[in-house]
Amino acid sequence: MVTKDLGLKEIIEGISQTDGEWVEKARQRTAQLVMPTRALGRLHDISEQLCGICKTLEPSINSKAILVMAGDHGVVDEGVSAYPQVITGEMVRAFLMGGAGINVLARLVDAEVWVVDMGIIPELDPASLDRGDRLLIRKVGRGTSNFAKGPAMTRHDAEKAILTGFQLATDLFEKGVEILGTGDMGIGNTTPSAAIGTVLTGREVEEMVGRGTGVDDQGLLRKQEAIRKGIRVNQPDSEDGADVLSKIGGFEIGGIAGCVLAGAYHSRPVVLDGFISTAGALVAHAICPAVVDYVFAGHRSEEPGHMAMLRHLGLEPILDLGMRLGEGTGGALAMGIMEGAVRIFQDMLTFEEAGVTDKES
Amino acid sequence: MVTKDLGLKEIIEGISQTDGEWVEKARQRTAQLVMPTRALGRLHDISEQLCGICKTLEPSINSKAILVMAGDHGVVDEGVSAYPQVITGEMVRAFLMGGAGINVLARLVDAEVWVVDMGIIPELDPASLDRGDRLLIRKVGRGTSNFAKGPAMTRHDAEKAILTGFQLATDLFEKGVEILGTGDMGIGNTTPSAAIGTVLTGREVEEMVGRGTGVDDQGLLRKQEAIRKGIRVNQPDSEDGADVLSKIGGFEIGGIAGCVLAGAYHSRPVVLDGFISTAGALVAHAICPAVVDYVFAGHRSEEPGHMAMLRHLGLEPILDLGMRLGEGTGGALAMGIMEGAVRIFQDMLTFEEAGVTDKES
Repeated sequence: MVTKDLGLKEIIEGISQTDGEWVEKARQRTAQLVMPTRALGRLHDISEQLCGICKTLEPSINSKAILVMAGDHGVVDEGVSAYPQVITGEMVRAFLMGGAGINVLARLVDAEVWVVDMGIIPELDPASLDRGDRLLIRKVGRGTSNFAKGPAMTRHDAEKAILTGFQLATDLFEKGVEILGTGDMGIGNTTPSAAIGTVLTGREVEEMVGRGTGVDDQGLLRKQEAIRKGIRVNQPDSEDGADVLSKIGGFEIGGIAGCVLAGAYHSRPVVLDGFISTAGALVAHAICPAVVDYVFAGHRSEEPGHMAMLRHLGLEPILDLGMRLGEGTGGALAMGIMEGAVRIFQDMLTFEEAGVTDKES
Repeated sequence: MVTKDLGLKEIIEGISQTDGEWVEKARQRTAQLVMPTRALGRLHDISEQLCGICKTLEPSINSKAILVMAGDHGVVDEGVSAYPQVITGEMVRAFLMGGAGINVLARLVDAEVWVVDMGIIPELDPASLDRGDRLLIRKVGRGTSNFAKGPAMTRHDAEKAILTGFQLATDLFEKGVEILGTGDMGIGNTTPSAAIGTVLTGREVEEMVGRGTGVDDQGLLRKQEAIRKGIRVNQPDSEDGADVLSKIGGFEIGGIAGCVLAGAYHSRPVVLDGFISTAGALVAHAICPAVVDYVFAGHRSEEPGHMAMLRHLGLEPILDLGMRLGEGTGGALAMGIMEGAVRIFQDMLTFEEAGVTDKES
C-alpha cells in the first residue's frame, strides 16, 4: 500500500482511538509474568499501549527512525534567542556529519536519522554535502515571517507543512519503520512553541515561556512580549490547529504535527522529544484529538511550560533528566526504555514457565 | 593485581573521595560540545562523575555486570510478606533459566548476570542446575534470624557478608568489569531494608515502610510493628554500619554493602537498584561515607521510603518509572542511560569540529 496526497480531512477520517481490547489482552499477559503484580510500573503501561496501537501481543519497535525537522523563524527579529540564526543551517550540516547529540543517541538505540529542511533560510544542496542523501529538502518557505507583526505563514503553507510531515512519516512507516521519533532544529523555535502552548492549553504566557537555549532575564521578557503581541495581532483560533500553526507557528512544528497525525493514521507509535515536538503534538491534537493514543512523551524538558503541555495532552514523560537540547534527543533516549518494556513483555517467563509459586497459589 | 582477604579496616583506608580535578577537566570538555550550555542536563553530570571516578577523560562502561544477591529472612515469621518464603529459592532458579526481569533487562544493556546465594534457606547445587556456573554459593547462613526477637545475625556474620560482597565485586572488577549493578532477591527483604533506613536516616518507621511486593493494610501494620520491635529489642548503633546490619539486616544486604565498598576501593562505578540496594548503600555509607562519590542511583523505587534514603546519601535517581521489582532491574535499565551519557561525552563533536558558530562568537 502506498499512501499519497491525502488531505487533512481524509487523514482525520482515517484516525480512530486505539483498541482497548488489545490493551486488555496485554494486561492479562503482564499479570502472568514472574513478578509481583505490575512490579515494573510504567514499563507495563508502555508495552500495553504498544499492543493497543499495533493490535498485537507481539509488538515490535526494532526498526526505529527519527525525523529531525528544521526551520527558521522570523520572530528572532524580536531578540528572542541567545544564538544567531545562522546556526540552524550549520546544525543541519552537523547532523549530516553524524556528530550532533541526536546522531550519538540515535546510534545508541539503533535508530536511523533523517534531516528535513522544512523551511530554513539557507539553500543547501544535498548532492554537494557528505551524506547528503540523509537530507530531505521539503522547504515550505525560507523561514517564517515575524509573527509579532503578522501571521508566521499563510494557511496554505501551514497545511502544506503538516501534510509534508505526514507524507515523510508515511513513507517511513510504509518502508517498515516501526517507531518514529520527532526532532527539531530551529533557532528561536521555543518562542512559537510557547505561543502555541499558550493558545492551545489556555495557560498564561508567563507559565509557558522559558529560557530556551539560554536567554537572560531581558531575553525572557522579550519572548513574553513577542508572544503577547503575536496573539493580539493574529488572534489565532484555538479550535483550529492549522490556524494556530499559520498565525504563530513554524514550518518544522507543522512537520512534527504531520508526523503525529501519520502515527495515528497508520497505527504506529510516535515518540515526542521535548518542548517543540510537544507544540507540534498540540497542533495535531487540536486537529484530531484521538492522536494522543499513539503518542509517547519521551522526556520532560527543562522548559517550564512543557509539563502544562503534556498535561493538556494527558501524557506522562518517560524520562526526566533536565534535558533541553531538542533535535529528538529525549525521544531517542526514551526509545531505549521502550525497547526494555517490549522485551519484558515478550521475553520474561510466566510464573508457570519459571516454576515459581504465585501469590494466589 | 589480585586483591584478597582484606579486612574492613584496610578497605576503609583504601577509599578516598573522587578526584575533583578530573571532574573539572570533564566539565571543560562538555562546554565545548556542539549544543547550548549543558543542554543534556543529567547526562553531563553522569559522564563527568564517571570521569572523576575513573580519573580519565575517556571513561568506558562497556563491560557491565550485575550481581544479584539472594538471602532469606527470619522476620517473615511476623507476616510481613505477601509471598511465601519458598519463592526466594525458586527465583534463584528462574535467574539461572534467564527468564526473570533482570535477565531480560541485562540482555538489553549487554550486562552479564551473576547470582549469589548469600544465605537462602534451600541448598542449591550449581552442578545439578542448568547454567549453574552463574550461581555462586557464598552462604553466610540459611536465612537470618527473626530480628523482631533478637539480632538477625552475629557481628561476625555481618562482617562476613560485607567482605563476601566486597570480594565478589573485586573479582569482577579485576576481570575487567567497568560498571557493576547491584541486585537483590529475598522474600521479606523490604522489612530489614526499611528497618535499616529508619535507623540510618533517622526518619520515622511510618515514612520508611511500604507495601513491598504488595501486602495489604494489615500487612503494612505488621511490618511497622516488626521494625519497631526489632529496633527496641536490638538497639542498633547508627554510628556502626556493621552493627546495624547484624541487628536488623540481611545477608544479601550485607553483600550489596560490600559491592558498594568495592566500587569505591577500586575506583569503579556502582549502580544501585532500588530500596534494598539503597539499604545496602546506607550500610556501606555508615562504614565509609566517601563511598557515595562512586555510586549512582539507578531509579526511584515505588517504595515510599526510598527517596528519604537517597536524600540521606545525596543521590538523585536516574529513572523514575514506578518500578518496584528489585533484582537489579532499575540499575540495569539506568545503565543504558549512563551509556548514552558516555557516548555523548566521547562522540559528540565540538563547536569547532562541527564548524558551528558558538554563542560567544
